[in-house]
Formats: sequence, C-alpha cells, structure tokens
Amino acid sequence: MTTQTHEPPIAQEALDHVLDRVELRLQDHLGRERAQWTSAPTGQASAVVPIDAVADLVHAGGKRLRPAFCASGFLCAGGGPDDPVIVDAAAALELLHAFALIHDDVLDASPLRRGRPTVHERYAAEHRARGWRGESRRFGEGVAILAGDLAYVLADTLTADFTPPARELWGELRTEMIIGQFVDIRSAAAASADLPLARWIAVCKSGHYTIHRPLALGAALAGRPDLAPAFEEYGVALGEAFQLRDDLIDAFGTSESTGKPVGLDVDQHKMTPLIAVAVERDARVRALVAEGGDGGWDAGRLRELLAETGVRAEIEAHIDRLVKRAHGAIARAPIGESWRRILTDMADRVAYRDR
Amino acid sequence: MTTQTHEPPIAQEALDHVLDRVELRLQDHLGRERAQWTSAPTGQASAVVPIDAVADLVHAGGKRLRPAFCASGFLCAGGGPDDPVIVDAAAALELLHAFALIHDDVLDASPLRRGRPTVHERYAAEHRARGWRGESRRFGEGVAILAGDLAYVLADTLTADFTPPARELWGELRTEMIIGQFVDIRSAAAASADLPLARWIAVCKSGHYTIHRPLALGAALAGRPDLAPAFEEYGVALGEAFQLRDDLIDAFGTSESTGKPVGLDVDQHKMTPLIAVAVERDARVRALVAEGGDGGWDAGRLRELLAETGVRAEIEAHIDRLVKRAHGAIARAPIGESWRRILTDMADRVAYRDR
Repeated sequence: MTTQTHEPPIAQEALDHVLDRVELRLQDHLGRERAQWTSAPTGQASAVVPIDAVADLVHAGGKRLRPAFCASGFLCAGGGPDDPVIVDAAAALELLHAFALIHDDVLDASPLRRGRPTVHERYAAEHRARGWRGESRRFGEGVAILAGDLAYVLADTLTADFTPPARELWGELRTEMIIGQFVDIRSAAAASADLPLARWIAVCKSGHYTIHRPLALGAALAGRPDLAPAFEEYGVALGEAFQLRDDLIDAFGTSESTGKPVGLDVDQHKMTPLIAVAVERDARVRALVAEGGDGGWDAGRLRELLAETGVRAEIEAHIDRLVKRAHGAIARAPIGESWRRILTDMADRVAYRDR
Repeated sequence: MTTQTHEPPIAQEALDHVLDRVELRLQDHLGRERAQWTSAPTGQASAVVPIDAVADLVHAGGKRLRPAFCASGFLCAGGGPDDPVIVDAAAALELLHAFALIHDDVLDASPLRRGRPTVHERYAAEHRARGWRGESRRFGEGVAILAGDLAYVLADTLTADFTPPARELWGELRTEMIIGQFVDIRSAAAASADLPLARWIAVCKSGHYTIHRPLALGAALAGRPDLAPAFEEYGVALGEAFQLRDDLIDAFGTSESTGKPVGLDVDQHKMTPLIAVAVERDARVRALVAEGGDGGWDAGRLRELLAETGVRAEIEAHIDRLVKRAHGAIARAPIGESWRRILTDMADRVAYRDR
C-alpha cells in the first residue's frame, strides 16, 4: 500500500480514488486470510468456508454507503487521499456491515440478500443436499453466526492504526447497532406500536450507524473533531430519511430492484416508523395491526391502507424535510465548496434512491 | 484504576491481586455500559436486556482459566501487578469467552450453562410466557446472537491499549477460535470420523484459545516475545489435555459437577478426539458410529464401548503424557522458580479438574 502523496486531485476524484482502493483492500484482506488457512501447517480444506461466505457477500456488491461517507468525512476534513488509514477504516466499515447483514438475516429469517440466497439459507440447503446429520436449519444458521463473527474480526483487524478518538467512535457505532437491533426484534415480538420507540430504533440502527458515525469517524481520523456537530445533524437527519426510504421500498418496492425480499418488515410486523405513523393516524390501521396475532397482519390490506390514509405521502413529505435539514447542516459546515456539493448530492441519492 | 507500583509481592499473591481486579473490572465495565443506556437521551428500558444477558453469564462464575493464564504469562514475564493493561486484557478474554459460549450454545442447542438456562433458552421461554408474536425459538436465538455480539464488542473495547504484537495475537486468537468452531460443526454434520481432523479441531479450539494464546498475550504485553516458544509447547499440550478431559467429563461425568449438560457431544455425534480414537481402535465403535444416522448413535451403548475397549484408559494415559510435556516446557522456560511452580500446578488442575 502506497503512502506517497500526490498533488491533491479534485474532490470527487479523490473520493473515487479512495473507494477504488477500498475494493482492492477488501479483496486483499479476505484473500490473505484465506491463503493463511489453506497453507501448511494450519491447512484444513473446509476452514475457508466461513471466509468464502463473507467474501461472497462482500464481493456481491452493495451500495458501499458507509465507506463513501467515511472517506468523504476524512477527505473533506483535509485528510490525504493516499493515507492508508482511511482505506482501512472504510474497508472495516464494509466488513462490519457484512457482519450485521449476515446476523440480521438469521434474525429475520430472510432468504435473499444482494440478489443471492442468504448465508444461512445457502448452508442449510447444502446440509440438506448432502444428507448430513442433524437439523439443516441449525447448521445453516450456525454457519451464518460464525461467518458473521468472522466478518467482525476481519473488520476489527483493520482498525489497528485508529487514534483513540476514532477507536472510541468505533466502539460506540458497534454497540448502538447491536442494541438497536435488539430493541427492534423485541418491539416486533411485543408488537409495540409506538412512534417514539420506532423513531428511536431508526435513529439507533440507521441514523448513527449508516451515515453519522462513518462521517464522524472519517473526520476523527483526519483530526477534525470540530466537524462532529455538523456531521451529527446531517447524519441523523439523513439516516432517518434513509430508513424511511427503506420502509417505503419494503412496503411498496419490488424484489428485483433491491436484491432482497420486499414486504418482509410488513410481513414480520416490524414496527417501522412508517407503520407507527400509520397506526397513529388511522383507526383502521390500528385495528389491523392489533388483530395481527401470530399469523401476522394482512400485508396486502396494510399496503392498501398505507396508500389510502395518506401515510405514504406524509412520509415522503417528512423525507423532504429531513433532506432539507441535512442540506442546511452541510451548507453551514466549515468544509470546502466542492465537498458541500458532494455531500448534498449524496443526501439526495440516499433519500431518493428509488428514483 | 491505580497505576502506582508496590514492592513486588510473591508470585501467587500478585496473581490473586490481578484476578481480583479483573472481577472488579468486569463488573465496572458492564455496569458502565448499562448505565449509559438507561440515562437520557439514549434511554430505552429494554436496551439493557442484551447487556444483562452478558452480565448474568459472566457473573454466574466460570473457571476464569483464560484470565488466569493471561495474568500468569504477564507476571512471570516481569509485568507489574498494578499495570492496568493486564487487568483489561484478562477481562477482555473473559468477555470474549462469554461471546463464544453464548454463540456456541445456540450452535449446539444447549439448554444449560454454568448451572442456568442458556441465553437462547431463557429468552425463548420469555417469548412463550408473554405470548409474543413470531417464533419463540427464533426470538431466543436472536437475543443470544445479539448478546454474543455485544460481549464481543465489550471485550474489544478493553483492548485499546494493546501493543501491536498483542493486537496481532488478539486477532489470531479470535480467528482460529471461530474457524475451529466451524470445522467442528461441519465435521459433526458430515460425521467425519477422522482422528487427525479431530485433533486439528481440538488444537484450534482449545489448544490455542484457552491456554497458549492467553499466556502468549500476557508475555507480549510484558514485552517478552522470547517466552513464546515455551508457552506454545506448554499451551498446546495442555490445551489438548484440557479438551480430552472435557470429552471424558462429557462422556462419563454428571451435570451437577459441570453446570452444563453432559453427554451432549456424544449425543450430537461430535467427532471429539475421544470418539475418533475409539473409532480407530474398535470395529464395534466404528459400526455404531457409522449406523448413527440422523437419529444419533446409541449414546449409552457408546459409553459402554468406550470403557470396554480401553479407550478411556488410553485417553487418561495420553493426558498424562501431555501434562508431562507441559511440565517439561515450563521447567525449561526462562522464568522464576515460583512461576514454574504455579504453572506446573495449573497444568495439573486443568488436566485433572474432575479429581
């Protein structure tokens, strides 16, 4: 990895340069780990299976939102595009995201991710096909638990050069992601139709983890803690918009466009902000959700009501307000004009990614 | 946390002093994390559930083997008993162990741990008792996955002051633990009755993780990489003895003495070194294991055969040889006489812990 410095390229070029190197870093990091387990004396053919499970997911694509925000936070704060620490940090965030996706897909019993079967589905299917002993579901989920755990270690080993403030942020980001996920599955189980709680979960799970903390991590690595308040305002507003868009795509989108099943949150009575707003606004939605019981609510009917009651339009208007707030925070941030433009565009792409 | 240095107390006192502080550190670390989630503005009552799940397991006891070996490695290498880094490292190993236990208990569908219901059992039962929506098993296992993930982060946040060699060891220890666990569940599923493979798994899962790496981590933190070869010889031999004792206790012990179910490995066709040796030695065992199929082999009959075939006595003799090798490695290690005595005693306690 090079540490020489070039003439500073223009902002978008610098960002693309870092993100290209993040892809190479991910390939290299996963490839090295794999090579280590196939070489003597630790050689054991099946040892690479969990590594391959992680690599397959990482290399299957994804929006790379967290690397993009982390790299932007670093570069707009004056960090150099050839500094290896930002490449490692951005790659670590993507591997952490792989960990979260693999475990979340078990929690949600989700069959599809990035257009392919989820890890637990794939290995449960292999178990069945080979006629192995024991329960196929448990084996598939076991592989997914361990593959997620491994993604997490592989993320972590990229953070060796973090400064103490960056390390602290890295800890907070992970804790709030996990606890947010727990409160989410608990509120789905308990069918808590509570808007403040649904918002709390959205801020915890997406508001911080996807945008705010990656940006703040980039700025911290560049030694610019003064950017934290602007990035928090931008990141929390945009994170909520991102989550609401996710809810709308889940409720009204198609599986082809997302590479994962749609309707799953609705089917699994996830109390998303979308549904919580609908429950507050409309007695018919309230009744439908309360009736749900163990069989789940009637998802088709719920979709109709979400459109009829105007909740969909209301959520769109709320997304617009959140995006405006994010734009405003960036307009006031002490960063260069070209970075203001890039972060403003990124806000639009995240909030309106179905357009 | 104090950093002042006392007159060096005698070896055992120094070890006890560090281990007492490890308990306080665990309580403090878990307590602080909990307090942070109950205070405004992040307050959300249920957020503490995964933290409490981890704390309940950690405070329910356990042998604290990894902290004891890590602290011994540090102190016998000349590290000071008041250095906070060893307390943090030992506490991190115990939290990492909590992570491993919580996830392994899901993988093995184990009902009991440290004399209490496992995390997934407890929360599946709560889900049933409250009549919540969705599947109780998935909810219970979801809480366990997230509680394990959290224990993992909480372990990691204690490693901020690790030196680069210690950080590298910390990465290796975690990776080999996870991959060893994967190869273990895969070989159980595929019913691979292969002694070299069973030994590979035992070395990977216990040989390194329980004794060798904690000792080496302690020595690395004290700046004594020269102790690594002696600790590797001691740790790998003793780790195998530890695992073989575990197999014997699982096959012949009682649940009261272990706080976890016995017979589970035998019942789940885990190809432990014990069973792999028996398969190699005896055609009746080979036939019984091959017959097993999805219903599992006949565990009672297998126990009889293990005693009849002399495999039990053979394993005991092998444990004796391993302990001798561990004693020899320590006798030649460049450490003080009192530490030689302590590590020799610890080897006996680990290898013969049912006596």
